[in-house]
Amino acid sequence: MRVAILAHEGFPDRAKTAVGLLRYADDEVAAVLDRTRAGERVRDHVPDVQDAPIVEGIDDVETSIDALVVGIAPIGGGFDETWRPDVRGALERGADVVAGLHYFLGDDAEFADLAAEHDCEIRDLRRPPEDLTVSDGTASEVDAEVVLTVGTDCSSGKMTTTFELAEAAREWGVDAGVVPTGQTGIAIEGYGIAVDRVVSDFAAGAVERMVTERAADFDVLFVEGQGAVGHPAYSGVTTSILHGAMPDRLVLCHVAGRDAVHGYEHVSIPPPGEYAALYESLAEPVAPAEVVAGALNTQRLDEDAAAADAVEAYADAIDAPATDPVRFDASEILPAVLGEE
Amino acid sequence: MRVAILAHEGFPDRAKTAVGLLRYADDEVAAVLDRTRAGERVRDHVPDVQDAPIVEGIDDVETSIDALVVGIAPIGGGFDETWRPDVRGALERGADVVAGLHYFLGDDAEFADLAAEHDCEIRDLRRPPEDLTVSDGTASEVDAEVVLTVGTDCSSGKMTTTFELAEAAREWGVDAGVVPTGQTGIAIEGYGIAVDRVVSDFAAGAVERMVTERAADFDVLFVEGQGAVGHPAYSGVTTSILHGAMPDRLVLCHVAGRDAVHGYEHVSIPPPGEYAALYESLAEPVAPAEVVAGALNTQRLDEDAAAADAVEAYADAIDAPATDPVRFDASEILPAVLGEE
Repeated sequence: MRVAILAHEGFPDRAKTAVGLLRYADDEVAAVLDRTRAGERVRDHVPDVQDAPIVEGIDDVETSIDALVVGIAPIGGGFDETWRPDVRGALERGADVVAGLHYFLGDDAEFADLAAEHDCEIRDLRRPPEDLTVSDGTASEVDAEVVLTVGTDCSSGKMTTTFELAEAAREWGVDAGVVPTGQTGIAIEGYGIAVDRVVSDFAAGAVERMVTERAADFDVLFVEGQGAVGHPAYSGVTTSILHGAMPDRLVLCHVAGRDAVHGYEHVSIPPPGEYAALYESLAEPVAPAEVVAGALNTQRLDEDAAAADAVEAYADAIDAPATDPVRFDASEILPAVLGEE
Repeated sequence: MRVAILAHEGFPDRAKTAVGLLRYADDEVAAVLDRTRAGERVRDHVPDVQDAPIVEGIDDVETSIDALVVGIAPIGGGFDETWRPDVRGALERGADVVAGLHYFLGDDAEFADLAAEHDCEIRDLRRPPEDLTVSDGTASEVDAEVVLTVGTDCSSGKMTTTFELAEAAREWGVDAGVVPTGQTGIAIEGYGIAVDRVVSDFAAGAVERMVTERAADFDVLFVEGQGAVGHPAYSGVTTSILHGAMPDRLVLCHVAGRDAVHGYEHVSIPPPGEYAALYESLAEPVAPAEVVAGALNTQRLDEDAAAADAVEAYADAIDAPATDPVRFDASEILPAVLGEE
């Protein structure tokens, strides 16, 4: 698949889906749409992913594309009307449109008509299956080992850590799969349910279904966590994933130096050791699991030496091996994550 | 309002909404529909609520009614097709139909047509408002004192305790209101959002909205909790309510002698003291709150003396005053609940 990624006014820092696709997906990225950076290139901002031109809008994408992917997710998940010409233009070119917004583009009359007219497809990644049910509390019975990434905040590296661990495990010859629970992971894997969009009663059930399905295909599953259990808005999603997945082990993701919840600066983030204990206490009554490793996002630290020091301090704080899976190497924590330590 | 309550094959033990309405609502109950108990009376089964005849079906309700309320909620929230003649009959008589199912009766073509034809209304209590948003993390700023009931399981007495505490507080002259979060509470209050039916991302936001709205009208709010934080299917809803409401104090509800999650017998319920500590740990990062009192459901104990012993042991276990608010008196824990101890 060759795709263009819409990331207006957000690339790269507020365009998590765009960067995730550039880094992990098999798709070829023809262009990134960001009208504030037109003329620049992806590698000017993110050095270690596939390169592509950044353009003003869909009409500036010169090659043919199979799909336009909406690569930013504003808080609340709304559709920005300034994106309409790009979505319209993509459909008029016969390209599919893939989006992970709360607002379903497939329900937009203009887009639905255009898609029908040009014989292309609108895929709303957050639209949940219609036959979800409550959890049976049985995910712990699957044959696969289940590892869940949990975090001290949103955007703390859970999705990245999940994919980095799966890649590292595969390099070690482990038959590892990913269970994506958010729009970026789903876009990358072409599989998954956006748990934050599921009716609360069925959220754990949705995770249980995915773990059960994927356990039939893999020996080890890396489940992508969402939110944080101390997040004022998203903790319910976090808890549903923890109890729906019934993981064997947890990996705690944290951003070095972040001490307040992003967007909720009045809410402090507890120290990592306390946070790890809180996840373990919450897991205990349903399916006990320990935080066996940590992933520290050291992006904001310029020097590798400072990042290494931060990782070491983080490992001490959570009393488990840690790494920065992007800056350093996910395989450093793999033995602990796989239960081999 | 005069209402009939549908509770086929479930009255009274599996008809929580029916019993809640009989006990707490201002509505006059003309009849309970339960085809397995036709000819009996409400008071044959539940002694301390308003009495009414139990009948076979809607055609046996002899007085005029304003509404038929569906008073049972099967696991999964589906519609039982054997109820169709009763719903149809109610609409044909011009009565409204009120239901708290996941399956929305208003979306059923036959019922929608009948409602239009007979100029009556179908109210699906679980249908969430369309303009919900993520939480801002601001419920702790409201002027009212906020008390949340939490539980060690589903059906452990949270709704009952919420209403009993509000009634007891009003008797003491406190300007107390209820924030209902489930279909029965909503049916009783004529206000509320069924949080379990809200998209996960917006569940805490829905609670925050209700707390903020109702805090303008009352000095003390009793928020109805849902599920339990150690429940394999519903813990996400529980957590969303805890963090969305940001309560000042918690009341822990438990069923005497219950040691496994209802319907999930392979999942043990931790001891009450540990459970209280878990709620406090989970509240801490967002808005600290302590379990200040306990409500023990002693329904299964025949003797008052045994029930009193169980309450005393429960109070010791959670290190806080406790009562059975139905068998004994909610006012026993009111000073602690109101923060006056």
